[in-house]
Amino acid sequence: MSDMTERGREILAAQPFSRLVGAELVHFESGSVEMRLPITDALKQQNGFAHGGVVSYLADNALTFAGGSKFAGPVVTAEMKINYVRPAVGEVLIARAQAISSGATQAVARCDVFVLTAEGEKLCAAAQGTIMALPKRDG
Amino acid sequence: MSDMTERGREILAAQPFSRLVGAELVHFESGSVEMRLPITDALKQQNGFAHGGVVSYLADNALTFAGGSKFAGPVVTAEMKINYVRPAVGEVLIARAQAISSGATQAVARCDVFVLTAEGEKLCAAAQGTIMALPKRDG
Amino acid sequence: MSDMTERGREILAAQPFSRLVGAELVHFESGSVEMRLPITDALKQQNGFAHGGVVSYLADNALTFAGGSKFAGPVVTAEMKINYVRPAVGEVLIARAQAISSGATQAVARCDVFVLTAEGEKLCAAAQGTIMALPKRDG
Amino acid sequence: MSDMTERGREILAAQPFSRLVGAELVHFESGSVEMRLPITDALKQQNGFAHGGVVSYLADNALTFAGGSKFAGPVVTAEMKINYVRPAVGEVLIARAQAISSGATQAVARCDVFVLTAEGEKLCAAAQGTIMALPKRDG
Repeated sequence: MSDMTERGREILAAQPFSRLVGAELVHFESGSVEMRLPITDALKQQNGFAHGGVVSYLADNALTFAGGSKFAGPVVTAEMKINYVRPAVGEVLIARAQAISSGATQAVARCDVFVLTAEGEKLCAAAQGTIMALPKRDG
Repeated sequence: MSDMTERGREILAAQPFSRLVGAELVHFESGSVEMRLPITDALKQQNGFAHGGVVSYLADNALTFAGGSKFAGPVVTAEMKINYVRPAVGEVLIARAQAISSGATQAVARCDVFVLTAEGEKLCAAAQGTIMALPKRDG
Repeated sequence: MSDMTERGREILAAQPFSRLVGAELVHFESGSVEMRLPITDALKQQNGFAHGGVVSYLADNALTFAGGSKFAGPVVTAEMKINYVRPAVGEVLIARAQAISSGATQAVARCDVFVLTAEGEKLCAAAQGTIMALPKRDG
Repeated sequence: MSDMTERGREILAAQPFSRLVGAELVHFESGSVEMRLPITDALKQQNGFAHGGVVSYLADNALTFAGGSKFAGPVVTAEMKINYVRPAVGEVLIARAQAISSGATQAVARCDVFVLTAEGEKLCAAAQGTIMALPKRDG
Protein backbone atom coordinates (compact mmCIF):
# COMPACT_ATOMS: atom_id res chain seq x y z
CA MET A 1 0.00 0.00 0.00
CA SER A 2 1.36 3.40 -0.98
CA ASP A 3 2.02 6.10 1.60
CA MET A 4 -0.67 8.19 -0.01
CA THR A 5 -3.27 5.44 0.20
CA GLU A 6 -2.33 4.96 3.84
CA ARG A 7 -2.63 8.70 4.51
CA GLY A 8 -6.00 8.76 2.76
CA ARG A 9 -7.27 5.93 4.93
CA GLU A 10 -6.30 7.88 8.04
CA ILE A 11 -8.29 10.88 6.83
CA LEU A 12 -11.29 8.70 6.02
CA ALA A 13 -11.06 6.98 9.42
CA ALA A 14 -11.10 10.42 11.06
CA GLN A 15 -14.55 11.13 9.54
CA PRO A 16 -17.21 9.78 11.92
CA PHE A 17 -19.83 9.76 9.15
CA SER A 18 -17.60 7.74 6.83
CA ARG A 19 -17.14 5.20 9.64
CA LEU A 20 -20.90 5.14 10.25
CA VAL A 21 -21.65 4.18 6.65
CA GLY A 22 -18.57 1.97 6.27
CA ALA A 23 -16.71 3.64 3.39
CA GLU A 24 -13.34 2.18 2.41
CA LEU A 25 -10.49 3.75 0.47
CA VAL A 26 -9.05 1.30 -2.05
CA HIS A 27 -6.42 3.40 -3.80
CA PHE A 28 -5.31 7.02 -3.62
CA GLU A 29 -2.78 8.88 -5.69
CA SER A 30 -2.36 12.45 -6.88
CA GLY A 31 -5.55 13.42 -8.69
CA SER A 32 -7.22 10.05 -8.43
CA VAL A 33 -9.03 7.90 -5.89
CA GLU A 34 -11.09 4.72 -5.66
CA MET A 35 -13.48 4.21 -2.76
CA ARG A 36 -15.91 1.39 -1.94
CA LEU A 37 -18.99 1.11 0.20
CA PRO A 38 -20.71 -2.20 0.96
CA ILE A 39 -24.49 -1.74 0.60
CA THR A 40 -25.82 -2.83 3.98
CA ASP A 41 -29.54 -2.76 4.81
CA ALA A 42 -29.10 0.41 6.85
CA LEU A 43 -28.04 2.30 3.73
CA LYS A 44 -31.16 1.57 1.71
CA GLN A 45 -34.32 3.51 0.93
CA GLN A 46 -37.86 2.15 0.94
CA ASN A 47 -37.51 0.20 -2.33
CA GLY A 48 -34.47 -1.80 -1.25
CA PHE A 49 -31.70 -0.07 -3.17
CA ALA A 50 -28.99 2.20 -1.79
CA HIS A 51 -30.42 5.61 -0.87
CA GLY A 52 -29.53 8.41 -3.30
CA GLY A 53 -28.01 10.25 -0.36
CA VAL A 54 -25.58 7.36 0.14
CA VAL A 55 -24.55 7.46 -3.50
CA SER A 56 -24.11 11.24 -3.38
CA TYR A 57 -22.12 10.96 -0.14
CA LEU A 58 -19.70 8.55 -1.80
CA ALA A 59 -19.40 10.69 -4.94
CA ASP A 60 -18.90 13.82 -2.84
CA ASN A 61 -16.18 12.19 -0.77
CA ALA A 62 -14.37 10.73 -3.79
CA LEU A 63 -14.45 14.11 -5.56
CA THR A 64 -13.01 15.75 -2.46
CA PHE A 65 -10.16 13.23 -2.18
CA ALA A 66 -9.31 13.35 -5.90
CA GLY A 67 -9.46 17.14 -6.17
CA GLY A 68 -8.04 17.78 -2.72
CA SER A 69 -4.92 15.73 -3.49
CA LYS A 70 -3.83 18.63 -5.69
CA PHE A 71 -3.37 20.90 -2.66
CA ALA A 72 -1.06 20.75 0.33
CA GLY A 73 -3.54 21.90 2.99
CA PRO A 74 -7.18 21.39 3.93
CA VAL A 75 -9.90 21.61 1.30
CA VAL A 76 -13.67 21.76 1.02
CA THR A 77 -16.04 20.70 -1.71
CA ALA A 78 -17.56 23.94 -2.99
CA GLU A 79 -20.21 22.36 -5.17
CA MET A 80 -21.09 19.22 -7.05
CA LYS A 81 -23.62 17.84 -9.48
CA ILE A 82 -24.75 14.25 -9.73
CA ASN A 83 -26.84 12.31 -12.25
CA TYR A 84 -28.35 9.08 -10.99
CA VAL A 85 -28.48 6.84 -14.03
CA ARG A 86 -29.53 3.49 -12.56
CA PRO A 87 -30.95 2.26 -9.23
CA ALA A 88 -28.10 1.20 -6.96
CA VAL A 89 -29.09 -2.45 -6.60
CA GLY A 90 -26.17 -4.68 -5.75
CA GLU A 91 -23.56 -5.59 -3.20
CA VAL A 92 -21.06 -2.76 -3.22
CA LEU A 93 -20.77 0.82 -4.48
CA ILE A 94 -17.47 1.69 -6.16
CA ALA A 95 -16.56 5.34 -6.77
CA ARG A 96 -13.68 6.36 -9.02
CA ALA A 97 -12.82 10.03 -9.22
CA GLN A 98 -10.20 12.00 -11.14
CA ALA A 99 -9.17 15.64 -11.06
CA ILE A 100 -9.55 16.99 -14.59
CA SER A 101 -8.21 20.47 -13.87
CA SER A 102 -6.43 22.22 -11.03
CA GLY A 103 -5.20 25.72 -10.35
CA ALA A 104 -3.85 27.68 -7.39
CA THR A 105 -7.00 27.44 -5.29
CA GLN A 106 -9.49 25.19 -7.09
CA ALA A 107 -9.66 21.80 -8.74
CA VAL A 108 -12.48 20.30 -10.80
CA ALA A 109 -13.02 16.56 -10.60
CA ARG A 110 -15.30 13.95 -12.10
CA CYS A 111 -16.55 10.78 -10.45
CA ASP A 112 -18.21 7.62 -11.73
CA VAL A 113 -20.12 5.50 -9.22
CA PHE A 114 -20.66 1.86 -10.09
CA VAL A 115 -22.72 -0.78 -8.37
CA LEU A 116 -21.17 -4.22 -8.22
CA THR A 117 -23.57 -7.04 -8.97
CA ALA A 118 -23.22 -10.70 -9.87
CA GLU A 119 -22.97 -9.56 -13.50
CA GLY A 120 -20.16 -7.12 -12.89
CA GLU A 121 -19.94 -3.37 -12.43
CA LYS A 122 -22.71 -1.12 -13.69
CA LEU A 123 -22.60 2.66 -13.78
CA CYS A 124 -25.20 4.02 -11.38
CA ALA A 125 -24.20 7.69 -11.05
CA ALA A 126 -21.92 10.31 -12.60
CA ALA A 127 -20.80 13.39 -10.72
CA GLN A 128 -18.71 16.51 -11.27
CA GLY A 129 -17.64 19.12 -8.74
CA THR A 130 -15.29 21.81 -7.49
CA ILE A 131 -12.82 21.35 -4.64
CA MET A 132 -11.42 24.48 -3.05
CA ALA A 133 -8.26 24.92 -1.00
CA LEU A 134 -8.99 26.70 2.27
CA PRO A 135 -7.02 29.92 2.70
CA LYS A 136 -4.03 29.57 4.99
CA ARG A 137 -4.49 31.00 8.46
CA ASP A 138 -1.78 32.76 10.34
CA GLY A 139 -0.63 30.82 13.38
CA MET B 1 -50.64 17.34 11.63
CA SER B 2 -52.00 17.13 8.11
CA ASP B 3 -52.67 13.82 6.41
CA MET B 4 -49.93 14.61 3.94
CA THR B 5 -47.35 15.29 6.65
CA GLU B 6 -48.37 12.03 8.30
CA ARG B 7 -48.04 10.16 5.01
CA GLY B 8 -44.63 11.74 4.42
CA ARG B 9 -43.43 10.61 7.83
CA GLU B 10 -44.43 7.05 7.01
CA ILE B 11 -42.38 7.17 3.79
CA LEU B 12 -39.41 8.62 5.64
CA ALA B 13 -39.70 5.99 8.37
CA ALA B 14 -39.65 3.31 5.67
CA GLN B 15 -36.17 4.45 4.55
CA PRO B 16 -33.57 2.63 6.66
CA PHE B 17 -30.90 5.22 5.80
CA SER B 18 -33.12 8.10 6.90
CA ARG B 19 -33.67 6.32 10.22
CA LEU B 20 -29.91 5.70 10.54
CA VAL B 21 -29.10 9.40 10.26
CA GLY B 22 -32.19 10.54 12.17
CA ALA B 23 -33.99 12.72 9.60
CA GLU B 24 -37.36 14.17 10.61
CA LEU B 25 -40.16 15.48 8.43
CA VAL B 26 -41.58 18.71 9.89
CA HIS B 27 -44.16 19.69 7.28
CA PHE B 28 -45.24 18.33 3.92
CA GLU B 29 -47.72 19.69 1.43
CA SER B 30 -48.09 19.62 -2.36
CA GLY B 31 -44.84 20.96 -3.82
CA SER B 32 -43.21 21.82 -0.51
CA VAL B 33 -41.47 20.12 2.40
CA GLU B 34 -39.45 20.95 5.51
CA MET B 35 -37.11 18.37 6.97
CA ARG B 36 -34.74 18.50 9.96
CA LEU B 37 -31.69 16.54 10.97
CA PRO B 38 -30.03 16.91 14.38
CA ILE B 39 -26.24 17.05 13.88
CA THR B 40 -24.98 14.21 16.06
CA ASP B 41 -21.28 13.37 16.34
CA ALA B 42 -21.71 10.39 14.02
CA LEU B 43 -22.70 12.72 11.17
CA LYS B 44 -19.55 14.82 11.24
CA GLN B 45 -16.37 14.87 9.19
CA GLN B 46 -12.86 15.28 10.55
CA ASN B 47 -13.16 19.01 11.31
CA GLY B 48 -16.23 18.70 13.49
CA PHE B 49 -18.94 19.94 11.18
CA ALA B 50 -21.65 17.93 9.43
CA HIS B 51 -20.21 15.92 6.55
CA GLY B 52 -21.02 17.28 3.10
CA GLY B 53 -22.55 13.93 2.30
CA VAL B 54 -25.03 14.43 5.15
CA VAL B 55 -26.00 17.85 3.84
CA SER B 56 -26.39 16.49 0.31
CA TYR B 57 -28.44 13.52 1.61
CA LEU B 58 -30.87 15.93 3.29
CA ALA B 59 -31.08 18.20 0.23
CA ASP B 60 -31.59 15.17 -2.04
CA ASN B 61 -34.35 13.80 0.14
CA ALA B 62 -36.13 17.16 0.50
CA LEU B 63 -35.98 17.69 -3.28
CA THR B 64 -37.46 14.24 -3.82
CA PHE B 65 -40.34 14.84 -1.40
CA ALA B 66 -41.12 18.32 -2.77
CA GLY B 67 -40.92 17.32 -6.42
CA GLY B 68 -42.39 13.86 -5.89
CA SER B 69 -45.52 15.29 -4.28
CA LYS B 70 -46.55 16.43 -7.76
CA PHE B 71 -47.02 12.82 -8.91
CA ALA B 72 -49.39 10.09 -7.82
CA GLY B 73 -46.96 7.17 -7.98
CA PRO B 74 -43.35 6.39 -7.11
CA VAL B 75 -40.56 8.77 -8.16
CA VAL B 76 -36.79 8.96 -8.33
CA THR B 77 -34.38 11.85 -8.20
CA ALA B 78 -32.81 11.96 -11.66
CA GLU B 79 -30.12 14.51 -10.85
CA MET B 80 -29.26 17.32 -8.49
CA LYS B 81 -26.71 20.04 -7.96
CA ILE B 82 -25.63 21.46 -4.63
CA ASN B 83 -23.52 24.45 -3.62
CA TYR B 84 -22.07 24.31 -0.11
CA VAL B 85 -21.90 27.94 0.99
CA ARG B 86 -20.92 27.64 4.66
CA PRO B 87 -19.57 24.90 6.93
CA ALA B 88 -22.47 23.15 8.64
CA VAL B 89 -21.52 24.01 12.22
CA GLY B 90 -24.48 23.99 14.60
CA GLU B 91 -27.15 21.89 16.24
CA VAL B 92 -29.61 21.01 13.51
CA LEU B 93 -29.84 21.02 9.71
CA ILE B 94 -33.10 22.34 8.29
CA ALA B 95 -33.95 21.72 4.63
CA ARG B 96 -36.80 23.53 2.88
CA ALA B 97 -37.60 22.50 -0.68
CA GLN B 98 -40.17 23.70 -3.21
CA ALA B 99 -41.15 22.42 -6.64
CA ILE B 100 -40.70 25.29 -9.09
CA SER B 101 -42.01 23.47 -12.15
CA SER B 102 -43.81 20.23 -12.87
CA GLY B 103 -45.02 18.45 -15.98
CA ALA B 104 -46.40 15.04 -16.86
CA THR B 105 -43.29 13.08 -15.90
CA GLN B 106 -40.78 15.49 -14.31
CA ALA B 107 -40.63 18.18 -11.67
CA VAL B 108 -37.81 20.59 -10.90
CA ALA B 109 -37.31 21.63 -7.29
CA ARG B 110 -35.04 23.90 -5.28
CA CYS B 111 -33.85 23.39 -1.73
CA ASP B 112 -32.20 25.62 0.85
CA VAL B 113 -30.37 23.94 3.71
CA PHE B 114 -29.86 25.97 6.88
CA VAL B 115 -27.86 25.19 9.97
CA LEU B 116 -29.46 26.22 13.25
CA THR B 117 -27.07 27.84 15.70
CA ALA B 118 -27.46 29.92 18.85
CA GLU B 119 -27.62 32.95 16.58
CA GLY B 120 -30.41 31.60 14.41
CA GLU B 121 -30.59 29.91 11.02
CA LYS B 122 -27.78 30.33 8.52
CA LEU B 123 -27.84 29.17 4.92
CA CYS B 124 -25.26 26.41 4.47
CA ALA B 125 -26.22 24.90 1.10
CA ALA B 126 -28.45 25.50 -1.92
CA ALA B 127 -29.58 22.72 -4.23
CA GLN B 128 -31.61 22.22 -7.38
CA GLY B 129 -32.69 19.00 -9.01
CA THR B 130 -35.03 16.95 -11.18
CA ILE B 131 -37.55 14.43 -9.84
CA MET B 132 -38.93 11.92 -12.28
CA ALA B 133 -42.12 9.87 -12.06
CA LEU B 134 -41.43 6.19 -12.65
CA PRO B 135 -43.37 4.72 -15.56
CA LYS B 136 -46.41 2.74 -14.51
CA ARG B 137 -46.04 -1.00 -14.70
CA ASP B 138 -48.81 -3.28 -15.73
CA GLY B 139 -50.09 -5.34 -12.84
CA MET C 1 -31.80 55.09 -13.88
CA SER C 2 -29.45 54.34 -10.99
CA ASP C 3 -25.69 54.76 -11.32
CA MET C 4 -25.31 51.02 -10.90
CA THR C 5 -27.76 50.21 -13.71
CA GLU C 6 -25.90 52.68 -15.91
CA ARG C 7 -22.56 51.09 -15.01
CA GLY C 8 -23.97 47.64 -15.73
CA ARG C 9 -25.16 48.74 -19.15
CA GLU C 10 -21.67 49.95 -19.97
CA ILE C 11 -20.22 46.56 -19.05
CA LEU C 12 -22.85 44.75 -21.12
CA ALA C 13 -22.23 47.09 -24.09
CA ALA C 14 -18.52 46.23 -23.84
CA GLN C 15 -19.30 42.54 -24.50
CA PRO C 16 -19.37 41.95 -28.27
CA PHE C 17 -21.36 38.73 -27.85
CA SER C 18 -24.02 40.45 -25.75
CA ARG C 19 -24.36 43.08 -28.49
CA LEU C 20 -24.56 40.33 -31.14
CA VAL C 21 -27.52 38.66 -29.44
CA GLY C 22 -29.10 41.92 -28.31
CA ALA C 23 -29.19 41.51 -24.51
CA GLU C 24 -30.47 44.45 -22.45
CA LEU C 25 -29.94 45.25 -18.79
CA VAL C 26 -33.17 46.44 -17.18
CA HIS C 27 -32.15 46.93 -13.56
CA PHE C 28 -28.98 46.31 -11.57
CA GLU C 29 -28.33 46.69 -7.86
CA SER C 30 -26.10 45.00 -5.31
CA GLY C 31 -26.82 41.26 -5.52
CA SER C 32 -29.62 41.49 -8.07
CA VAL C 33 -30.10 42.03 -11.78
CA GLU C 34 -32.81 41.85 -14.43
CA MET C 35 -31.86 41.33 -18.07
CA ARG C 36 -33.99 40.96 -21.20
CA LEU C 37 -33.39 39.48 -24.61
CA PRO C 38 -35.84 39.86 -27.51
CA ILE C 39 -36.18 36.47 -29.27
CA THR C 40 -35.29 37.26 -32.87
CA ASP C 41 -35.26 34.60 -35.57
CA ALA C 42 -31.46 34.41 -35.46
CA LEU C 43 -31.62 33.16 -31.87
CA LYS C 44 -33.80 30.15 -32.57
CA GLN C 45 -33.14 26.46 -33.06
CA GLN C 46 -34.71 24.22 -35.69
CA ASN C 47 -38.13 24.00 -34.01
CA GLY C 48 -38.68 27.74 -33.80
CA PHE C 49 -38.01 28.41 -30.15
CA ALA C 50 -35.03 30.17 -28.59
CA HIS C 51 -31.95 27.92 -28.67
CA GLY C 52 -31.01 26.43 -25.30
CA GLY C 53 -27.62 28.06 -25.72
CA VAL C 54 -29.30 31.46 -25.84
CA VAL C 55 -31.19 30.75 -22.65
CA SER C 56 -28.03 29.51 -20.94
CA TYR C 57 -26.10 32.56 -22.18
CA LEU C 58 -28.68 34.87 -20.58
CA ALA C 59 -28.74 32.88 -17.33
CA ASP C 60 -24.93 32.79 -17.23
CA ASN C 61 -24.67 36.52 -17.76
CA ALA C 62 -27.35 37.36 -15.18
CA LEU C 63 -25.67 35.10 -12.61
CA THR C 64 -22.36 36.83 -13.27
CA PHE C 65 -23.82 40.31 -12.85
CA ALA C 66 -25.77 39.41 -9.68
CA GLY C 67 -22.90 37.55 -8.04
CA GLY C 68 -20.20 39.83 -9.39
CA SER C 69 -21.85 42.90 -7.86
CA LYS C 70 -20.67 41.60 -4.48
CA PHE C 71 -17.01 42.24 -5.41
CA ALA C 72 -15.08 45.39 -6.23
CA GLY C 73 -12.94 44.00 -9.06
CA PRO C 74 -13.30 41.69 -12.05
CA VAL C 75 -15.03 38.31 -11.70
CA VAL C 76 -15.60 35.12 -13.63
CA THR C 77 -18.36 32.54 -13.53
CA ALA C 78 -16.71 29.40 -12.19
CA GLU C 79 -19.62 27.06 -12.86
CA MET C 80 -23.35 26.96 -13.33
CA LYS C 81 -26.22 24.54 -13.67
CA ILE C 82 -29.39 25.09 -15.60
CA ASN C 83 -32.69 23.22 -15.84
CA TYR C 84 -34.76 23.93 -18.94
CA VAL C 85 -38.35 23.54 -17.79
CA ARG C 86 -40.32 24.76 -20.81
CA PRO C 87 -39.57 25.52 -24.48
CA ALA C 88 -38.71 29.21 -24.84
CA VAL C 89 -41.56 30.14 -27.18
CA GLY C 90 -42.46 33.80 -27.01
CA GLU C 91 -41.35 37.35 -27.65
CA VAL C 92 -38.75 38.09 -25.01
CA LEU C 93 -36.57 36.26 -22.50
CA ILE C 94 -36.39 37.84 -19.04
CA ALA C 95 -33.70 36.73 -16.58
CA ARG C 96 -33.80 37.68 -12.91
CA ALA C 97 -30.84 36.68 -10.76
CA GLN C 98 -30.03 37.14 -7.08
CA ALA C 99 -26.93 36.42 -5.05
CA ILE C 100 -27.92 34.08 -2.23
CA SER C 101 -24.53 33.94 -0.53
CA SER C 102 -21.24 35.78 -0.78
CA GLY C 103 -17.87 35.52 0.91
CA ALA C 104 -14.40 36.96 0.41
CA THR C 105 -13.78 35.41 -2.99
CA GLN C 106 -16.98 33.65 -4.11
CA ALA C 107 -20.68 34.31 -4.43
CA VAL C 108 -23.47 31.86 -5.23
CA ALA C 109 -26.42 33.14 -7.22
CA ARG C 110 -29.72 31.83 -8.57
CA CYS C 111 -31.47 32.87 -11.74
CA ASP C 112 -34.97 32.39 -13.12
CA VAL C 113 -35.49 32.81 -16.85
CA PHE C 114 -38.99 33.61 -18.05
CA VAL C 115 -40.39 33.80 -21.55
CA LEU C 116 -42.86 36.61 -22.15
CA THR C 117 -45.88 35.60 -24.18
CA ALA C 118 -49.30 37.11 -24.84
CA GLU C 119 -50.46 35.30 -21.70
CA GLY C 120 -47.77 36.76 -19.46
CA GLU C 121 -44.45 35.47 -18.13
CA LYS C 122 -43.75 31.77 -17.95
CA LEU C 123 -40.76 30.17 -16.27
CA CYS C 124 -38.62 28.48 -18.91
CA ALA C 125 -35.35 27.83 -17.05
CA ALA C 126 -33.83 27.87 -13.57
CA ALA C 127 -30.10 28.22 -12.97
CA GLN C 128 -27.64 28.31 -10.08
CA GLY C 129 -23.93 29.09 -10.18
CA THR C 130 -20.72 30.31 -8.57
CA ILE C 131 -19.09 33.65 -9.33
CA MET C 132 -15.47 34.08 -8.35
CA ALA C 133 -13.50 37.26 -7.78
CA LEU C 134 -10.26 37.23 -9.77
CA PRO C 135 -7.16 37.58 -7.61
CA LYS C 136 -5.67 41.08 -7.61
CA ARG C 137 -2.55 41.50 -9.71
CA ASP C 138 0.34 43.64 -8.69
CA GLY C 139 0.61 46.68 -10.86
CA MET D 1 -18.06 11.73 -44.40
CA SER D 2 -20.47 9.28 -42.79
CA ASP D 3 -24.20 9.49 -43.35
CA MET D 4 -24.64 10.34 -39.71
CA THR D 5 -22.16 13.23 -39.82
CA GLU D 6 -23.96 14.49 -42.90
CA ARG D 7 -27.33 14.21 -41.18
CA GLY D 8 -25.93 16.02 -38.12
CA ARG D 9 -24.69 18.87 -40.30
CA GLU D 10 -28.15 19.28 -41.76
CA ILE D 11 -29.65 19.55 -38.27
CA LEU D 12 -27.00 22.08 -37.24
CA ALA D 13 -27.55 24.09 -40.41
CA ALA D 14 -31.27 24.19 -39.59
CA GLN D 15 -30.53 26.03 -36.32
CA PRO D 16 -30.40 29.77 -37.03
CA PHE D 17 -28.48 30.44 -33.80
CA SER D 18 -25.81 27.86 -34.68
CA ARG D 19 -25.40 29.56 -38.07
CA LEU D 20 -25.19 32.97 -36.36
CA VAL D 21 -22.27 31.89 -34.17
CA GLY D 22 -20.68 29.70 -36.83
CA ALA D 23 -20.65 26.27 -35.20
CA GLU D 24 -19.38 23.35 -37.27
CA LEU D 25 -19.96 19.63 -36.82
CA VAL D 26 -16.74 17.68 -37.35
CA HIS D 27 -17.82 14.13 -36.60
CA PHE D 28 -21.01 12.47 -35.43
CA GLU D 29 -21.70 8.88 -34.57
CA SER D 30 -24.00 7.05 -32.16
CA GLY D 31 -23.34 8.48 -28.69
CA SER D 32 -20.50 10.76 -29.72
CA VAL D 33 -19.94 14.08 -31.43
CA GLU D 34 -17.19 16.62 -32.12
CA MET D 35 -18.08 20.23 -32.84
CA ARG D 36 -15.93 23.29 -33.51
CA LEU D 37 -16.48 27.01 -33.25
CA PRO D 38 -13.98 29.59 -34.53
CA ILE D 39 -13.65 32.36 -31.93
CA THR D 40 -14.47 35.50 -33.88
CA ASP D 41 -14.48 38.93 -32.26
CA ALA D 42 -18.27 38.95 -32.11
CA LEU D 43 -18.20 35.97 -29.73
CA LYS D 44 -16.05 37.62 -27.08
CA GLN D 45 -16.76 39.31 -23.77
CA GLN D 46 -15.15 42.52 -22.50
CA ASN D 47 -11.76 40.95 -21.70
CA GLY D 48 -11.15 39.49 -25.13
CA PHE D 49 -11.89 35.82 -24.60
CA ALA D 50 -14.88 33.83 -25.77
CA HIS D 51 -17.97 34.69 -23.73
CA GLY D 52 -18.99 32.02 -21.20
CA GLY D 53 -22.36 31.92 -22.93
CA VAL D 54 -20.64 30.88 -26.16
CA VAL D 55 -18.80 28.08 -24.39
CA SER D 56 -22.00 26.91 -22.71
CA TYR D 57 -23.88 27.08 -26.03
CA LEU D 58 -21.32 24.78 -27.63
CA ALA D 59 -21.32 22.38 -24.68
CA ASP D 60 -25.14 22.35 -24.61
CA ASN D 61 -25.34 21.62 -28.31
CA ALA D 62 -22.69 18.89 -28.22
CA LEU D 63 -24.43 17.22 -25.26
CA THR D 64 -27.72 17.31 -27.16
CA PHE D 65 -26.22 15.73 -30.27
CA ALA D 66 -24.33 13.04 -28.35
CA GLY D 67 -27.24 12.13 -26.08
CA GLY D 68 -29.90 12.68 -28.72
CA SER D 69 -28.24 10.21 -31.08
CA LYS D 70 -29.49 7.47 -28.77
CA PHE D 71 -33.12 8.18 -29.71
CA ALA D 72 -34.99 7.92 -32.99
CA GLY D 73 -37.09 11.08 -32.65
CA PRO D 74 -36.73 14.66 -31.47
CA VAL D 75 -35.05 15.43 -28.14
CA VAL D 76 -34.49 18.31 -25.76
CA THR D 77 -31.76 19.03 -23.27
CA ALA D 78 -33.46 18.82 -19.87
CA GLU D 79 -30.56 20.20 -17.85
CA MET D 80 -26.83 20.65 -17.85
CA LYS D 81 -23.99 21.73 -15.61
CA ILE D 82 -20.76 23.35 -16.75
CA ASN D 83 -17.48 24.15 -15.01
CA TYR D 84 -15.36 26.81 -16.69
CA VAL D 85 -11.79 25.82 -15.88
CA ARG D 86 -9.77 28.23 -18.01
CA PRO D 87 -10.45 31.46 -19.94
CA ALA D 88 -11.26 30.58 -23.56
CA VAL D 89 -8.36 32.44 -25.16
CA GLY D 90 -7.40 31.05 -28.56
CA GLU D 91 -8.51 30.49 -32.12
CA VAL D 92 -11.12 27.77 -31.99
CA LEU D 93 -13.36 26.04 -29.46
CA ILE D 94 -13.58 22.25 -29.80
CA ALA D 95 -16.32 20.34 -27.98
CA ARG D 96 -16.28 16.57 -27.67
CA ALA D 97 -19.27 14.89 -26.05
CA GLN D 98 -20.15 11.28 -25.28
CA ALA D 99 -23.29 9.63 -23.98
CA ILE D 100 -22.36 7.74 -20.80
CA SER D 101 -25.77 6.24 -20.16
CA SER D 102 -29.04 5.91 -22.03
CA GLY D 103 -32.44 4.43 -21.28
CA ALA D 104 -35.88 4.45 -22.86
CA THR D 105 -36.46 8.19 -22.51
CA GLN D 106 -33.26 9.80 -21.19
CA ALA D 107 -29.55 9.84 -21.86
CA VAL D 108 -26.77 11.38 -19.77
CA ALA D 109 -23.77 12.80 -21.59
CA ARG D 110 -20.49 14.46 -20.76
CA CYS D 111 -18.67 17.08 -22.77
CA ASP D 112 -15.15 18.51 -22.71
CA VAL D 113 -14.57 21.88 -24.35
CA PHE D 114 -11.04 22.71 -25.45
CA VAL D 115 -9.59 25.93 -26.77
CA LEU D 116 -7.10 25.53 -29.58
CA THR D 117 -4.04 27.74 -29.25
CA ALA D 118 -0.59 27.82 -30.85
CA GLU D 119 0.49 25.45 -28.08
CA GLY D 120 -2.23 22.91 -28.75
CA GLU D 121 -5.56 22.11 -27.15
CA LYS D 122 -6.30 23.16 -23.61
CA LEU D 123 -9.35 22.14 -21.58
CA CYS D 124 -11.46 25.21 -20.88
CA ALA D 125 -14.76 23.72 -19.72
CA ALA D 126 -16.34 20.43 -18.64
CA ALA D 127 -20.06 19.80 -18.81
CA GLN D 128 -22.58 17.08 -17.99
CA GLY D 129 -26.26 16.96 -18.79
CA THR D 130 -29.48 15.07 -19.48
CA ILE D 131 -31.08 14.70 -22.90
CA MET D 132 -34.71 13.68 -23.01
CA ALA D 133 -36.67 12.10 -25.86
CA LEU D 134 -39.85 14.03 -26.55
CA PRO D 135 -43.00 11.93 -26.19
CA LYS D 136 -44.44 10.83 -29.51
CA ARG D 137 -47.49 12.75 -30.61
CA ASP D 138 -50.39 11.23 -32.40
CA GLY D 139 -50.56 12.41 -35.95
